[in-house]
Amino acid sequence: MTEPRYDVIAIGNAVVDVIASCPEDLIDELQLNRGGMTLIDEARADELYDAMPPAREVSGGSAANTLAGLSTLGLQCAFIGQVAEDQLGKVFRHDMRATGIDFDTPARSGEPATGRVLIFVTPDGERTMNTFLGAGQFLPAAALDEDLIASAAILYLEGYLWDPEEPRSAMRRAIEVARRAGRKVAFTASESFVIERHGDDFRDLIERGMIDILFVNESELATLTGLDDFDAGFDAIAPKVPVLVATRSERGAVAHAHGTRAVVSAEPIDHVIDTTGAGDQFAAGFLSGYAKGMDLEECLKRGAIAAAEVISHYGPRPEADLKALIAEKL
Amino acid sequence: MTEPRYDVIAIGNAVVDVIASCPEDLIDELQLNRGGMTLIDEARADELYDAMPPAREVSGGSAANTLAGLSTLGLQCAFIGQVAEDQLGKVFRHDMRATGIDFDTPARSGEPATGRVLIFVTPDGERTMNTFLGAGQFLPAAALDEDLIASAAILYLEGYLWDPEEPRSAMRRAIEVARRAGRKVAFTASESFVIERHGDDFRDLIERGMIDILFVNESELATLTGLDDFDAGFDAIAPKVPVLVATRSERGAVAHAHGTRAVVSAEPIDHVIDTTGAGDQFAAGFLSGYAKGMDLEECLKRGAIAAAEVISHYGPRPEADLKALIAEKL
Repeated sequence: MTEPRYDVIAIGNAVVDVIASCPEDLIDELQLNRGGMTLIDEARADELYDAMPPAREVSGGSAANTLAGLSTLGLQCAFIGQVAEDQLGKVFRHDMRATGIDFDTPARSGEPATGRVLIFVTPDGERTMNTFLGAGQFLPAAALDEDLIASAAILYLEGYLWDPEEPRSAMRRAIEVARRAGRKVAFTASESFVIERHGDDFRDLIERGMIDILFVNESELATLTGLDDFDAGFDAIAPKVPVLVATRSERGAVAHAHGTRAVVSAEPIDHVIDTTGAGDQFAAGFLSGYAKGMDLEECLKRGAIAAAEVISHYGPRPEADLKALIAEKL
Repeated sequence: MTEPRYDVIAIGNAVVDVIASCPEDLIDELQLNRGGMTLIDEARADELYDAMPPAREVSGGSAANTLAGLSTLGLQCAFIGQVAEDQLGKVFRHDMRATGIDFDTPARSGEPATGRVLIFVTPDGERTMNTFLGAGQFLPAAALDEDLIASAAILYLEGYLWDPEEPRSAMRRAIEVARRAGRKVAFTASESFVIERHGDDFRDLIERGMIDILFVNESELATLTGLDDFDAGFDAIAPKVPVLVATRSERGAVAHAHGTRAVVSAEPIDHVIDTTGAGDQFAAGFLSGYAKGMDLEECLKRGAIAAAEVISHYGPRPEADLKALIAEKL
């Protein structure tokens, strides 16, 4: 096994977030799934955009956001994802590269356009996401650079991208490649609806020991295990994955690894502006510690600090100097 | 003279701002004109974008930003400007309409793309703008809806758009239409370099009494009058325009109208994040009062409050509820 060239390589959605603050009423009026992520087609995307208040555009995508956090924290990262040959695709690629992430998957020509996520942020800071996957749903297994995947210590995958067929096959292939190269596979469940649709796949991967590091939130854990009690669900999965990280929003997070369990409180913040990216940055903070061999409690603490930073402003990627922030708080 | 249908109609740049925080060093390294606005071609735009940190995209354009403020403050507004048929053009149009502004200038097909402004924001909050005008420079006089212009109480023009030839002709025509309809013409000088290039035009318009409301900042006033002393410059122009508003950054602003002079201090704020849009929102606050017949001091105070709001966050348009903010502070 050769020395890895990258700390983390991720396969994920390549999307631009379109973020608007909105009054509470609008969520009901547009029949949105408050606090959740809903896949939408282009017609619905146009309809929702027409009804959306003025917005800001920021590159997003769950795994891509996590990489942005990891790169900011000094890790070497690469990304695989599918944009179209259009302006939003250029925006996405620019933001990845400007964050120091290698991203060389060629853009796809023709329709559909680069994916976008219409995010409605209510006054409580909660984000309601509506995702038009666009070109992202056509990420082909052929686009995987297998040498690249084999060259990263950790392969990071997002559940959101498990839904469309082509990327799912690509991710299955990537898991094989990574494991054959002796690398670790990290997986974020992303959202309960993904588990409702593909839970059998995920449970199978877990049972077969294909996942080394699993990130879930409370409701994903419940959907995955069928157990409503958090501790029961956690205890059911913990023996099956080397590292399990479960986030609980304002109640902090719990992790289990190598027989050890650690707990962290949520980092206090003055005012929640936009929760988009909270889970993504928690994962970034955690993995940044894990990749450097830090103990479980420190990994969790780093996750909590990174998550607190991202929910204190609009947009799913760090804006503050995360390294300095962690150095100051730890 | 019929009752106006709009309070304000503006002709201006239709651009999307691409805003990145950057270290102080980068300004020198890229040989940028610190604190200013520089017109760039597409090749230079690509070069600067490649060197730019991760960014956020927000609709901009000086006059368009002012309209966004005015509309937020309850005025009826319409906009004339040129976008291309592309994703950024759609973003710009969406943000105008979502702010309640009528904007029906048809998109232009083919190259160039919708204009964009690459904005580097240094740690002191100062913005350095690099503008690729794109489709905006081809706004033709034929695109003017003369009935629309005649139907607004105030025609608002930005100096930035005086530079390219086609929009300049369009704006000259618009001034004629507005004046023939008995409407007022407001003009913002935008930037000293515009006055260096087109000062004779502006001085001629002023001398001929074609401008009713003139917005300048200190350095524009000096360039326009050739007088370095602020008071001397102000006194030289004040008798020639019915309303003169001169902003002085952290030293507040001065206005003169109908023989009265009023002064306002800058609104104190905790931390300047991004000065982009400060002048635009000052103009919005001022005009919102002026259009409603408020006294000069109140108009200035509204300008100062709107400017303070916009420099406390990234992006050139209001994010807070300006109406509530003004009600609270006045």
